[in-house]
Amino acid sequence: MPYVNIKVTKEGLTKEKKSALIKGVTELLQNQLGKNPQTTVVIIDEVDTDNWGIGGETVTERRKRGS
Amino acid sequence: MPYVNIKVTKEGLTKEKKSALIKGVTELLQNQLGKNPQTTVVIIDEVDTDNWGIGGETVTERRKRGS
Amino acid sequence: MPYVNIKVTKEGLTKEKKSALIKGVTELLQNQLGKNPQTTVVIIDEVDTDNWGIGGETVTERRKRGS
Amino acid sequence: MPYVNIKVTKEGLTKEKKSALIKGVTELLQNQLGKNPQTTVVIIDEVDTDNWGIGGETVTERRKRGS
Amino acid sequence: MPYVNIKVTKEGLTKEKKSALIKGVTELLQNQLGKNPQTTVVIIDEVDTDNWGIGGETVTERRKRGS
Amino acid sequence: MPYVNIKVTKEGLTKEKKSALIKGVTELLQNQLGKNPQTTVVIIDEVDTDNWGIGGETVTERRKRGS
Repeated sequence: MPYVNIKVTKEGLTKEKKSALIKGVTELLQNQLGKNPQTTVVIIDEVDTDNWGIGGETVTERRKRGS
Repeated sequence: MPYVNIKVTKEGLTKEKKSALIKGVTELLQNQLGKNPQTTVVIIDEVDTDNWGIGGETVTERRKRGS
Repeated sequence: MPYVNIKVTKEGLTKEKKSALIKGVTELLQNQLGKNPQTTVVIIDEVDTDNWGIGGETVTERRKRGS
Repeated sequence: MPYVNIKVTKEGLTKEKKSALIKGVTELLQNQLGKNPQTTVVIIDEVDTDNWGIGGETVTERRKRGS
Repeated sequence: MPYVNIKVTKEGLTKEKKSALIKGVTELLQNQLGKNPQTTVVIIDEVDTDNWGIGGETVTERRKRGS
Repeated sequence: MPYVNIKVTKEGLTKEKKSALIKGVTELLQNQLGKNPQTTVVIIDEVDTDNWGIGGETVTERRKRGS
């Protein structure tokens, strides 16, 4: 019954990657905590790099600076 | 003053449906808990079926399989 | 398959009220959007009035002022 | 290490405004709580006015009514 | 830089389990998406079974019924 | 009308600090984006250091190691 929300920057995550990530997280919760995979919900949010800030600046700005 | 976040898969929810849903949830909180509707906030997130996982697979995959 | 998160101030919400609220929201999503109630998840967060702000002050402060 | 999520209606927020908002919130957490800005994460969600409800109606409806 | 929020019912999750879960999710994001583990944030919310609803009833009620 | 959620580790945040933080964030949104403070909602979540992970380990573990 767990609910998992994963936020990553929107930078070309493919359908296949999303599918693998959902499978991986669901298995992890089954193996580590014994959670029923049938009712495990995983939601992936892809966030524009202009809307994600770390260290007081946007990821867009960091990428430009080469960090 | 309640805050409600509703996440559904992005599958053609119309403006009218969203409007009715917001009205319905706000009334429910007023009727059941006595909450002031004027300050009740409801936010609807529509999530791509590739980004929503249940049972270890994406909703896109489930729809293809006919579940 | 919807996921609903309801945040309210922590002010004595009983088990019965929580139960009725979960039932009501699940039925609303079934009636209005045709969502399967079996996979509808509702999570209620009760937030301390010191930790909830509106209008630039905490709910604790508002309650003291009588608003 | 704080994590901040800011939701606003999607109404033309520029890159520059987002950048200033992220900087401002990060500085506030540093000045008021002594939090390390390097690990402060800020995520801005811009929500369609059809998907944001307050007072039992959508922001789109309120804007039309002139509120 | 991913942010992950995991919600599970509050039913005796130990420190060790939490620690292993955080490690596991962080490694998964590194292995599958190439994300830097140093800036991956994972937050676990433990939710009272009275406050978690599925299928229109609380988990407390389901546990009593033996589901 | 903005909604802001701030998550910090649970390490002795006083009522006064919470109050100042709510005031500061609300003013920032008013000054930078012209948002009406009367309908700005700020919710602070204090998260146990066992439940917050960064760099693949819990904050509890990092604190013990002296980071």
